[in-house]
Amino acid sequence: MQSESNVFISCTAEYKDAGLVIFGAPFDSTASYRPGARFGCKAMRAESFGIETYSPVQDKDLSDYSIFDAGDLEMSIGSANTALGQIYAASGKILRDGKIPCMLGGEHLVTLGAVRALREKYDDLYILQFDAHADLRDSYLGVKNSHACVMRRCYELVGDGRIFQLGIRSGEREEFKFAKEHTVMSRFNLEGMEEAVSRLAGKNVYFTLDLDVLEPSVFPGTGTPEPGGVSFSDLHSAIMKLQGLNIVGFDITELSPHYDQSGISVMAACKILREILLVVNN
Amino acid sequence: MQSESNVFISCTAEYKDAGLVIFGAPFDSTASYRPGARFGCKAMRAESFGIETYSPVQDKDLSDYSIFDAGDLEMSIGSANTALGQIYAASGKILRDGKIPCMLGGEHLVTLGAVRALREKYDDLYILQFDAHADLRDSYLGVKNSHACVMRRCYELVGDGRIFQLGIRSGEREEFKFAKEHTVMSRFNLEGMEEAVSRLAGKNVYFTLDLDVLEPSVFPGTGTPEPGGVSFSDLHSAIMKLQGLNIVGFDITELSPHYDQSGISVMAACKILREILLVVNN
Amino acid sequence: MQSESNVFISCTAEYKDAGLVIFGAPFDSTASYRPGARFGCKAMRAESFGIETYSPVQDKDLSDYSIFDAGDLEMSIGSANTALGQIYAASGKILRDGKIPCMLGGEHLVTLGAVRALREKYDDLYILQFDAHADLRDSYLGVKNSHACVMRRCYELVGDGRIFQLGIRSGEREEFKFAKEHTVMSRFNLEGMEEAVSRLAGKNVYFTLDLDVLEPSVFPGTGTPEPGGVSFSDLHSAIMKLQGLNIVGFDITELSPHYDQSGISVMAACKILREILLVVNN
Amino acid sequence: MQSESNVFISCTAEYKDAGLVIFGAPFDSTASYRPGARFGCKAMRAESFGIETYSPVQDKDLSDYSIFDAGDLEMSIGSANTALGQIYAASGKILRDGKIPCMLGGEHLVTLGAVRALREKYDDLYILQFDAHADLRDSYLGVKNSHACVMRRCYELVGDGRIFQLGIRSGEREEFKFAKEHTVMSRFNLEGMEEAVSRLAGKNVYFTLDLDVLEPSVFPGTGTPEPGGVSFSDLHSAIMKLQGLNIVGFDITELSPHYDQSGISVMAACKILREILLVVNN
Amino acid sequence: MQSESNVFISCTAEYKDAGLVIFGAPFDSTASYRPGARFGCKAMRAESFGIETYSPVQDKDLSDYSIFDAGDLEMSIGSANTALGQIYAASGKILRDGKIPCMLGGEHLVTLGAVRALREKYDDLYILQFDAHADLRDSYLGVKNSHACVMRRCYELVGDGRIFQLGIRSGEREEFKFAKEHTVMSRFNLEGMEEAVSRLAGKNVYFTLDLDVLEPSVFPGTGTPEPGGVSFSDLHSAIMKLQGLNIVGFDITELSPHYDQSGISVMAACKILREILLVVNN
Amino acid sequence: MQSESNVFISCTAEYKDAGLVIFGAPFDSTASYRPGARFGCKAMRAESFGIETYSPVQDKDLSDYSIFDAGDLEMSIGSANTALGQIYAASGKILRDGKIPCMLGGEHLVTLGAVRALREKYDDLYILQFDAHADLRDSYLGVKNSHACVMRRCYELVGDGRIFQLGIRSGEREEFKFAKEHTVMSRFNLEGMEEAVSRLAGKNVYFTLDLDVLEPSVFPGTGTPEPGGVSFSDLHSAIMKLQGLNIVGFDITELSPHYDQSGISVMAACKILREILLVVNN
Repeated sequence: MQSESNVFISCTAEYKDAGLVIFGAPFDSTASYRPGARFGCKAMRAESFGIETYSPVQDKDLSDYSIFDAGDLEMSIGSANTALGQIYAASGKILRDGKIPCMLGGEHLVTLGAVRALREKYDDLYILQFDAHADLRDSYLGVKNSHACVMRRCYELVGDGRIFQLGIRSGEREEFKFAKEHTVMSRFNLEGMEEAVSRLAGKNVYFTLDLDVLEPSVFPGTGTPEPGGVSFSDLHSAIMKLQGLNIVGFDITELSPHYDQSGISVMAACKILREILLVVNN
Repeated sequence: MQSESNVFISCTAEYKDAGLVIFGAPFDSTASYRPGARFGCKAMRAESFGIETYSPVQDKDLSDYSIFDAGDLEMSIGSANTALGQIYAASGKILRDGKIPCMLGGEHLVTLGAVRALREKYDDLYILQFDAHADLRDSYLGVKNSHACVMRRCYELVGDGRIFQLGIRSGEREEFKFAKEHTVMSRFNLEGMEEAVSRLAGKNVYFTLDLDVLEPSVFPGTGTPEPGGVSFSDLHSAIMKLQGLNIVGFDITELSPHYDQSGISVMAACKILREILLVVNN
Repeated sequence: MQSESNVFISCTAEYKDAGLVIFGAPFDSTASYRPGARFGCKAMRAESFGIETYSPVQDKDLSDYSIFDAGDLEMSIGSANTALGQIYAASGKILRDGKIPCMLGGEHLVTLGAVRALREKYDDLYILQFDAHADLRDSYLGVKNSHACVMRRCYELVGDGRIFQLGIRSGEREEFKFAKEHTVMSRFNLEGMEEAVSRLAGKNVYFTLDLDVLEPSVFPGTGTPEPGGVSFSDLHSAIMKLQGLNIVGFDITELSPHYDQSGISVMAACKILREILLVVNN
Repeated sequence: MQSESNVFISCTAEYKDAGLVIFGAPFDSTASYRPGARFGCKAMRAESFGIETYSPVQDKDLSDYSIFDAGDLEMSIGSANTALGQIYAASGKILRDGKIPCMLGGEHLVTLGAVRALREKYDDLYILQFDAHADLRDSYLGVKNSHACVMRRCYELVGDGRIFQLGIRSGEREEFKFAKEHTVMSRFNLEGMEEAVSRLAGKNVYFTLDLDVLEPSVFPGTGTPEPGGVSFSDLHSAIMKLQGLNIVGFDITELSPHYDQSGISVMAACKILREILLVVNN
Repeated sequence: MQSESNVFISCTAEYKDAGLVIFGAPFDSTASYRPGARFGCKAMRAESFGIETYSPVQDKDLSDYSIFDAGDLEMSIGSANTALGQIYAASGKILRDGKIPCMLGGEHLVTLGAVRALREKYDDLYILQFDAHADLRDSYLGVKNSHACVMRRCYELVGDGRIFQLGIRSGEREEFKFAKEHTVMSRFNLEGMEEAVSRLAGKNVYFTLDLDVLEPSVFPGTGTPEPGGVSFSDLHSAIMKLQGLNIVGFDITELSPHYDQSGISVMAACKILREILLVVNN
Repeated sequence: MQSESNVFISCTAEYKDAGLVIFGAPFDSTASYRPGARFGCKAMRAESFGIETYSPVQDKDLSDYSIFDAGDLEMSIGSANTALGQIYAASGKILRDGKIPCMLGGEHLVTLGAVRALREKYDDLYILQFDAHADLRDSYLGVKNSHACVMRRCYELVGDGRIFQLGIRSGEREEFKFAKEHTVMSRFNLEGMEEAVSRLAGKNVYFTLDLDVLEPSVFPGTGTPEPGGVSFSDLHSAIMKLQGLNIVGFDITELSPHYDQSGISVMAACKILREILLVVNN
């Protein structure tokens, strides 16, 4: 008898054979409105057996690829700095081993830990962000390393014109001003994806997906639902366009399953993750 | 130390300075299917800190306007007539003080109390209603002052051709017949808004928003969810068109938060209220 | 093929053969805190197939008795007076036909309609009440026929020393003063049942059970949960003591199933109803 | 007094007068992911009073037709074979009496019982399926009579080219291969309905509606929510096109109400059932 | 990097070193009222990190013992016979390897599979059952291998006077009659535990714990909540008395986590399992 | 018109007149299992109108006392150190003004901020703690200022034999060892209250109530429910005994309302707070 392994559906490769490594970052201590994203990564693994491994859109099957799921980091709940260090270390090891990190959040702040590691490897790192919120505050409630500031911190790492923000529909006036000068922002929907892809072609791109870019009806299980988001099909179509890019790492954040008793948010996250894994493995 | 005030986000003006006055009418005693709209106004205030004060669509910020939030009326639960009298009195005082009343329901019947006060001030009052239900019954389960009859009662106050009904997708056969003769009804969606606005231009218009006009997936937290409603974007676009009108009062009703454990309905109501407040304050 | 009848488990007798008649009064328009008791009677029928018809404590089986379940009255939601009239009429007919009425609430105000009918038949009617709340206010939020006043209204019908109140643990100071002079109140638990039974022996007794007498953990599905109530076993033991009394009618009120996602409140109500039906049928 | 009958709203005809007979099949023992569809049929009846009998789209009213609601079959929970036999028997009797059976699930496997009876009556039976899942597996977890295999079993009864599958967006690679050779499949949405109707015109068609064809936001209360489904309006439009077909029986399955605390899934099912009943009764 | 193992807290021993082997049996196809116990075993593992490994009552720590957690069997949902065979095979292997099986349900029927294997090893097997329900029906809804019949089937394997049933408070009249002749039943509470232990001393005892023996307020997350059960302390005290017995196998069944949004049922199950594991490892 | 004040029921005194000052500390960033206690203080105010101001046990009425409710501190979510500083400052001001601070959590860590301020004023401060968990870890997941360490941090401020811990039923082995040497611990229930009161008589006592001392069935809405707690009556009785003590400050923590859809946890917290306020105001 063998103890059961706990992985995202069919991601059962060994580490050494895997080109892509999944790990969870169950951290949500800076969530300002409703916490609970720490439960996101565990929920995605547990419920992933509710979807198929085969994608009829892509005509690809997860079971045909070598993906390793390392489980969750044990995070220092309550200390954002320590947590970011843990994520940075894990991402760095995966990158040094020549693999692509796929991080499951947790809140959106976790992106910062991964971007630090990626920026060390890639001088010219670009970031592609799907999100409802700009996340460009300089500080929030007196805290610098907050989910509401994560793209501002990333900006400080990658510089002007390197962050492509799609789907943004909420923020302070100041954030939108900042975006005009320093990032490439496309508001309210994902229609800017085509242009973004053409401008990002050939670059090293980190893709960060804050799932609250989805309309809250499609994805109620999140900390800060922002009415008026994109449909599942819109998000799926945009994801398909990743095919043209050189994705060097990615994450999927802000699933907070307790706020959705129906479980549809977890299923949406699982299906999107499957599609990203398949699209990146081309 | 100062006791915390309990207002819709950033509506912290003093009464004397405010052009617009918010008050809650936590009444739902005639709800025929699922009660609970009495909790709507409290929930909107409590959760309003989950949205921003800035609207990127309108490029306006709530904090730039003077709005007073008076809190909730203490309503006579169980007696529709007394409750309507309380609403009538509150609306009347606000109108006499030269301000615009913004009522947070409560069930849709509360509209009647406000319309009585407005009709006294404006001889030629028009009503613009977004709703899933016609609300044109003459009586319901033997009761005349019922949420299912509220527009019929309003009709008796304002007369033929003065009520514009948009988004209606449910009712008895008799109600649709009545509408053909006495109101201006546009069914199933909000596409009739453009024409309505052109016909209402220059008139004194009371705007009543029954939030169940939204598709139940977008707004599950309501007493009588009616499948097949409009999307958040559709509602938002229609709201933007209010800019061309002379709104002399408005309400937003039928949020029943207990039926939506996820909280997305409250967020939708909060964001729509912010947008209306900003559009009316032009 | 025969259309399915919708009755409390095994209460399938015909009206003419039944000594006991169940009917529902789905009314809750005066509920001051959380409405929803209107769904109580329907839920009890629907879930009653989750319990057995046999009581091992009493060694009796519901299927050995002739009980008729008439379904629900169609109530005038929003008008307490009309609703009370409908209950009065239904109870009166059952009494005139020589049967015992068993009313399923609905909120506690419904008791008043039944007591009016019973008081007409029995000059010397006594009332035995299990409840968390005294319900002795003279008026509430300006309303006389409110659930918070129901025993005060009953008192006006039956007079001094005729109402036995057990388990009361909440009320205004004035209500407890009133009780000292006009009713027989035993506070905080059901230990007074033995004495009550000995004093009520031989009298015509109406039994009204407000289920919120139970500790909220046992019965969370109610409009006004009051911490510190009696256990299920305590309530069950007290119910067993009804055997010594001449029960001429009874009700069971304040199940509000939406507030209990787990369903245990409905099961508690169903089991208690089975036990009362069996104890009264001795 | 008369015991309350428990039927879908206004389906109060007697059996002998009815052209259409509703019955429930509360079976879900083979549900592989999340069980609970057994509660679907009861929930639809109980909540049907939350919708109107009148359809403004069709300008028809349920109360103008003679429909009999037989209630639920008492199913052998735990034994798929016995359950299918019970459904087969009930469907057969209705067909022999010259009426159209309308079955309320339950999980999708129940369709097989009805199709067996219909296939006996109609040599050239066609099946029209709306579903998120292909349901074409040969066996699932070692079980042949599983919801995941139901259309494969039906295929064995009706043969090549007789099953029209619309909206399919999930399955194993093998199922899609099987469909290419043996069924007529239209993937991802209901746009193939027009062509399907033209090809099915004049045939005897059994219509099976797995409600999970809907986008999970619209219909979260189901066992296997599959993100990316059709909107309520899309489903409604497709249903309207049934008018051109000779429907000899139909079912509506996979409502699992416990997974949707908000109740919007039940309402969607009720409204769709009303619309089908009205469209078939032309 | 190593893939995360998914075990009950601190049960990380290897199979060969373990004296006790945990495995899950996620089967619930015969659940007659509310299904969902299939999710019980997964939930217990996932939430076990919410309790401590140390028991202050026993002054023992799980981390001091060698326990292997094999994960869940992949069960044939929909076929009770196949499922029972799978459980029988797994239990048999563990027993042949000289270890004690600890099965996590699933519904109570799963006990039968384990008892079959244990009965083969131990000629004189005794069974100690804590349960709200007698489970002694000969068949249920036409099915023999049903959760409602599981102890009847076990009786057929072990014979008269070998099954000790504690806490039973629900069943048909026939079941209680059967118990009088063939089992040793102690009704309504666990006070009979002392005597049971003295009579079972020195015997080979299989312990089966149907968690619905608990009062539903303490354990709402179960398929058939039966009001009036034992408190957590009562159950815990009875569990402590297992110390005097020779437990050759045990199970813990009927956790159905979806019916308890609060999560307290899972925590109760986890803590009880920890206490049993520690008491058996003496 | 006056903007509505948002206070715990009837705590409407002005600051200068109040002997007792309530404030909320909506912080939960170090919650290790389930976050959400930040919503506790808001929920208590919002739902407090569901209880009476009069206590029949104490025959006292909140409306007879002068209590000021200052609302919530705006906390630095994500930074425990800053948050503790904010609490320390608020408590200090209240103490310097000669008033008693009553803090509403938030997670249990908030106690540390208040104890720092109290320790400055009172050299010989004693602490009385009701709790399920010892909270005596030196650090947790690498964090020192964690809810799991709060009493250890307090111990470092007040010293040996000054912390009385009642009801403790969970912790690591090391914590119980630490308690034996450095605190006065009474395990599993509140029976040690009588002795604690006699030993604390005449001392300056800070009372900290972690509501998870309650049995989870009574109080499911908490982050770390620990089965086997005290009943509401037990807690209430112990609270009554506070009358003999000199309470110089107190808090009530760990209400996490999202985990209890029924709302009974909030009601329990409100009623206990009312009783403490009345008992301290003697």
